[in-house]
Amino acid sequence: MTRIIIHGCNGAMGRVLAQAAADGSDIEIVAGIDKLADPKDFPFPVFHSLFDCDVEADVVIDFSRPEALQGLLTYGKMHNIGLVLATTGYTDADKGMIHAAQKDCPIFQAANMSLGINLMMNLIQKAAAFFGDDFDCEIVEAHHNKKVDAPSGTALALADALNATYPQPKTYRLGRNKESGRRTRGEIGIHAIRGGTVVGEHSVGFYGTDEVVKIEHSALSKRIFAKGALRAAQFLCGQPNGFYSMEDLMAQETMTSLYT
Amino acid sequence: MTRIIIHGCNGAMGRVLAQAAADGSDIEIVAGIDKLADPKDFPFPVFHSLFDCDVEADVVIDFSRPEALQGLLTYGKMHNIGLVLATTGYTDADKGMIHAAQKDCPIFQAANMSLGINLMMNLIQKAAAFFGDDFDCEIVEAHHNKKVDAPSGTALALADALNATYPQPKTYRLGRNKESGRRTRGEIGIHAIRGGTVVGEHSVGFYGTDEVVKIEHSALSKRIFAKGALRAAQFLCGQPNGFYSMEDLMAQETMTSLYT
Amino acid sequence: MTRIIIHGCNGAMGRVLAQAAADGSDIEIVAGIDKLADPKDFPFPVFHSLFDCDVEADVVIDFSRPEALQGLLTYGKMHNIGLVLATTGYTDADKGMIHAAQKDCPIFQAANMSLGINLMMNLIQKAAAFFGDDFDCEIVEAHHNKKVDAPSGTALALADALNATYPQPKTYRLGRNKESGRRTRGEIGIHAIRGGTVVGEHSVGFYGTDEVVKIEHSALSKRIFAKGALRAAQFLCGQPNGFYSMEDLMAQETMTSLYT
Amino acid sequence: MTRIIIHGCNGAMGRVLAQAAADGSDIEIVAGIDKLADPKDFPFPVFHSLFDCDVEADVVIDFSRPEALQGLLTYGKMHNIGLVLATTGYTDADKGMIHAAQKDCPIFQAANMSLGINLMMNLIQKAAAFFGDDFDCEIVEAHHNKKVDAPSGTALALADALNATYPQPKTYRLGRNKESGRRTRGEIGIHAIRGGTVVGEHSVGFYGTDEVVKIEHSALSKRIFAKGALRAAQFLCGQPNGFYSMEDLMAQETMTSLYT
Repeated sequence: MTRIIIHGCNGAMGRVLAQAAADGSDIEIVAGIDKLADPKDFPFPVFHSLFDCDVEADVVIDFSRPEALQGLLTYGKMHNIGLVLATTGYTDADKGMIHAAQKDCPIFQAANMSLGINLMMNLIQKAAAFFGDDFDCEIVEAHHNKKVDAPSGTALALADALNATYPQPKTYRLGRNKESGRRTRGEIGIHAIRGGTVVGEHSVGFYGTDEVVKIEHSALSKRIFAKGALRAAQFLCGQPNGFYSMEDLMAQETMTSLYT
Repeated sequence: MTRIIIHGCNGAMGRVLAQAAADGSDIEIVAGIDKLADPKDFPFPVFHSLFDCDVEADVVIDFSRPEALQGLLTYGKMHNIGLVLATTGYTDADKGMIHAAQKDCPIFQAANMSLGINLMMNLIQKAAAFFGDDFDCEIVEAHHNKKVDAPSGTALALADALNATYPQPKTYRLGRNKESGRRTRGEIGIHAIRGGTVVGEHSVGFYGTDEVVKIEHSALSKRIFAKGALRAAQFLCGQPNGFYSMEDLMAQETMTSLYT
Repeated sequence: MTRIIIHGCNGAMGRVLAQAAADGSDIEIVAGIDKLADPKDFPFPVFHSLFDCDVEADVVIDFSRPEALQGLLTYGKMHNIGLVLATTGYTDADKGMIHAAQKDCPIFQAANMSLGINLMMNLIQKAAAFFGDDFDCEIVEAHHNKKVDAPSGTALALADALNATYPQPKTYRLGRNKESGRRTRGEIGIHAIRGGTVVGEHSVGFYGTDEVVKIEHSALSKRIFAKGALRAAQFLCGQPNGFYSMEDLMAQETMTSLYT
Repeated sequence: MTRIIIHGCNGAMGRVLAQAAADGSDIEIVAGIDKLADPKDFPFPVFHSLFDCDVEADVVIDFSRPEALQGLLTYGKMHNIGLVLATTGYTDADKGMIHAAQKDCPIFQAANMSLGINLMMNLIQKAAAFFGDDFDCEIVEAHHNKKVDAPSGTALALADALNATYPQPKTYRLGRNKESGRRTRGEIGIHAIRGGTVVGEHSVGFYGTDEVVKIEHSALSKRIFAKGALRAAQFLCGQPNGFYSMEDLMAQETMTSLYT
């Protein structure tokens, strides 16, 4: 049984996570944290700050905002508790803080908790290695009209994965207009569509001479991120201090067990 | 028999036009104009400037650059000859010049010569009228990596067609980045993908609460633009001075005859 | 206030309908009918058969199975109550029964309750009229892996809408294999993808010489069908006996009011 | 310099191949074979049958029909010349003949000569291994309306590649209709769209609970198949007798050199 604290329990993802945990097994939500939560709405104890929470737990799953990072790392070190960081929008300074904190507690971080997206990361790296500079790469993502950041953290993570493969890293072209001029080989285009209630779509296209290869992922509901985060929490439970990513999770388990 | 001068005969579209004309009937290319053309390469007389051309003709089809506009209008007036303006990238000042010149000769202008794109214009206006402000509209276009302008003239024409339908015109958002903030109802997103040898793709998406409608066009070769321009030339031949668009062409003829 | 009986309240769509009604205004679910329902699960009285139901209502919305049609029509006549038939899979004999019953009560029937799909019907008819026989038309639909019928009722309704436009109706080609031979102009291809939890996607493609136009609809949740059915119930309330379709609904109201 | 005989030089692919060879380097078309060819149309000697051809060559590239296989194998053995078999539609009996003939001459065979498609084969195997039985796999292909066979040889090769990965091979469902019933885990759906002048599109979709991953390839012109066949001919030249596939070609060379 993995005992979990949900950080950001009143947000959209926090609520989906609580529901997914209730449907799962070997998992218990022992507390929720949210400045704005009304405890009456939740079937578990709720606190306005992590530091008010005296419930014993194995892992904190964070679906709040990047600004909460410092508090989370402090709490993780204080209680030597696992942290699943499922928020996007971390700055380079944030990433440095995470890197420094990995000696104090087990930390799992991923820009996207979906297993499908993480497979996609792997496939686009193979394609980029195969096509090299001869194919132009362009990323298109689509999300609902309430999303605040653009492009999505996942789109940037996909671009970073490509750049980890290319011998010469490319620059990111965030949309094109009159001033953009002709495309160069040294760029990756990233395009952010916003509209309606789209949960999340990501497409990576490789455009060559007279042929195009596209690798695409569509999320139909937020449950896939909740399920991935719960799986990460179970994985993290009992690991030594250190930094863990989806690759570690995927390497350890056969996929059949991941998906059932 | 419609006698045609190709303005820009050495460019990619000029060459496709000459080929399409050779495959067609009731059409004759009587001259070509191009600063850079080698007359030996063409089966018709070639001149370096329109004003050197003394061949009698019914229509000039222009597939060169917007900078050539003034010369074309002067020539049209001087010879009272029909002009098919198939170049994109006209400024508002250019459009004013075209408007002023329509009393001097018959002028046909379209941002995109494909009949499929022009049907699309019609369909997206119906969709925009139906959905109103409740659906967010986003345009995505893709073209080859040598295209200089972004977004495409056709994408802008599609957005203009939408704005002609909405009670309140919307602003164009050319790509999104960290500074863009949350989407508003008053914007149309326009995204320009560039890669490989894509001839031309345009997609207009309407994103509502839990449903999305998309209307898409793919051009598989440049021949469709050449065929549309030739059809426009035939239509223009014998018309009184004035301004004509694809709507005029489409209104006059049954489609079956257009496509055969 | 429109008082509604949900026929098939225990099914997936019945439950979504009850939820959507609870979120709406001027609507009240006064009873549910379902052979398999446990009354404790519902906030309104539940009966195992329509004929056990003694609750006064304005409209019955049916999301059950085509086999239930005869009982519904009998009940509609008996109580002169409006019927919204939102089930798919009716046979020609069923359609004949509906036609005969329209003199006894107001009946609203649509193969798909989404307003987006009904716009799509309209757009593909315009495209088919424009392109005529020169473009090949192919329909692709995708649904979750639990869907029993193929192709979907909506795909067939889209094909019927095309055939109502073509001068010569075309035959439906349900998938192709070794025996199919070369495509003829007299056919519409219909392809049914089944997988995962896809709510519903429909794409109608027009394939011409070197250009393709596609019109596509994606449903992201079943709520859009529930909202359309509730709107139909409100529309039907107070209408004289007769047959009504989405076109009648769409003609009467401005879209802005439909979507808010 | 690789000396090549084009078998089927008068067909659409044969002509594209001759053009691509003329644009390339280190390649010479030394003869063409075609029952229906008029020698005046070609810049190289043309024969009506392979067995009339007395021109010395290194490789025969076949883009004719599966019925020509026996003659090709006989000729390959007789002259110990390399054979690039780029025709699709081979039966199991044909494949047995190819297998038997590989001791007599070097044979290269691929259902699709495009490097992009062959990367796609690799990626879908990785996805199938990752997702296992938890995701439903469906293949959609689109080709022009003159294509005789359905589904395409490439679509079947993609399905075979998936089945080589799944622990239990699945059956192929070629389209769905009223009789198909609910989808089972033991099937791969294959859908063949036919229309207009589409060169070739293949899409493999993996449909899971609330997420979908798609891997897609579009061919914009037949040149990509011609270039792949020429590359295969160069690879085959000088190899010992035996059977070779795209995997052998891709393993040997770095992609950068393949694409330049």
